[in-house]
Amino acid sequence: MQARSQYHAELDHVWQSLYELAELARLAMVRGSLALEEADLQIAEQVIAGDVQLDTRRAELDELVFTLLATQQPVATDLRLLTATIPAAAGLERMGDLAAHVARAARLRYPDHAVPEPLRATITGMGEVAVGLAADVAAALASRDPTLAARVPAGDEEMTRLHRQMFALLLAEHTGARVNTAIDVSLLGRYFERYADQAVSVARRVYFVITAEHLAPVEPREGWSGGRR
Amino acid sequence: MQARSQYHAELDHVWQSLYELAELARLAMVRGSLALEEADLQIAEQVIAGDVQLDTRRAELDELVFTLLATQQPVATDLRLLTATIPAAAGLERMGDLAAHVARAARLRYPDHAVPEPLRATITGMGEVAVGLAADVAAALASRDPTLAARVPAGDEEMTRLHRQMFALLLAEHTGARVNTAIDVSLLGRYFERYADQAVSVARRVYFVITAEHLAPVEPREGWSGGRR
Repeated sequence: MQARSQYHAELDHVWQSLYELAELARLAMVRGSLALEEADLQIAEQVIAGDVQLDTRRAELDELVFTLLATQQPVATDLRLLTATIPAAAGLERMGDLAAHVARAARLRYPDHAVPEPLRATITGMGEVAVGLAADVAAALASRDPTLAARVPAGDEEMTRLHRQMFALLLAEHTGARVNTAIDVSLLGRYFERYADQAVSVARRVYFVITAEHLAPVEPREGWSGGRR
Repeated sequence: MQARSQYHAELDHVWQSLYELAELARLAMVRGSLALEEADLQIAEQVIAGDVQLDTRRAELDELVFTLLATQQPVATDLRLLTATIPAAAGLERMGDLAAHVARAARLRYPDHAVPEPLRATITGMGEVAVGLAADVAAALASRDPTLAARVPAGDEEMTRLHRQMFALLLAEHTGARVNTAIDVSLLGRYFERYADQAVSVARRVYFVITAEHLAPVEPREGWSGGRR
């Protein structure tokens, strides 16, 4: 019995670790977006320096999963959890990387703003959506409630809408964007979009772990003129 | 003995499936790059339509890994293979997605070229590097030779160089790039770069499966003015 309760404690630790990774990924984007919005070098540096923490925690979690697979014979939900944890943790680590990319864009243009005024509200909105999706993923992991995981893909649609709006504004004559800005904003848009995609992917995995069923897929996406790449 | 030899046949099938995914990801980029270079709509459509094949094969492979983990008690190399297969297959599927994104960029501008003449040689070079990295990953999977996996990260450095060159050309006055082109080329550069990053990530996992050791990390990257994001 001792060994079994130890095993269950370790599975709880896997859930808890995934939740903590999601929280780190969320906080990185809270700060990355703020660094961009406020052109704040100090916050940008914090996000960039802090990213290694997510990487380390993810590597530790991979080790734990490997040990549990090697020493226990997990089945059903437990096996789904362990096999989902490796790619889910990789996705959460990637979200941290993308938040750090946002912070790097802010740092690169400091003391200027990376995003010109006509585009700023849209980009700020993308940051808010990204943070909201990460919060939903974290909540789903904390509660193991599949309905929280299931709502993440719908939230991602708002990101798609803002991403289209971003391109429309970037191309609008009145924005007066130059090549430099077009590069910065295109890449920033991509970082936010990929962060949201990763949040959806993690949420799908969490849903599958809990329910043993796959969330219905969303429609495929097109190029940025007609949607997203 | 029957059951053991069946198990070993299934592990071989995992290796073979990973190799085939790498080949599909490589071919997708061969064609995606060609569609871009030649502004060839038909090839672009083939790549975009063919991407679902990689997705399906990856899902089948995930199922097989899950079954093997549930019914066998893999240890050592076998367990490393199975736990690495899930994220490695996800990475190879992602490489296919990115090749399809390149094809979509070609389709979006057809019958025009998405990439203006002054940038074309650099972008073509990025496609060639991407294809070469995928070929190395496929060869490492086919041979289970760690030295082939180990050379992938070094090959990625050429991608970094070309990516910097791409931004320099995009910003050069004589290129005369407009916002539209800056968006297309920034995103294309990102797709090639991410394809290479995924190839490196898969190669690292393959190296770890074979040797039980981690390949040394490469230096972190900076913003596009000083390198890559």
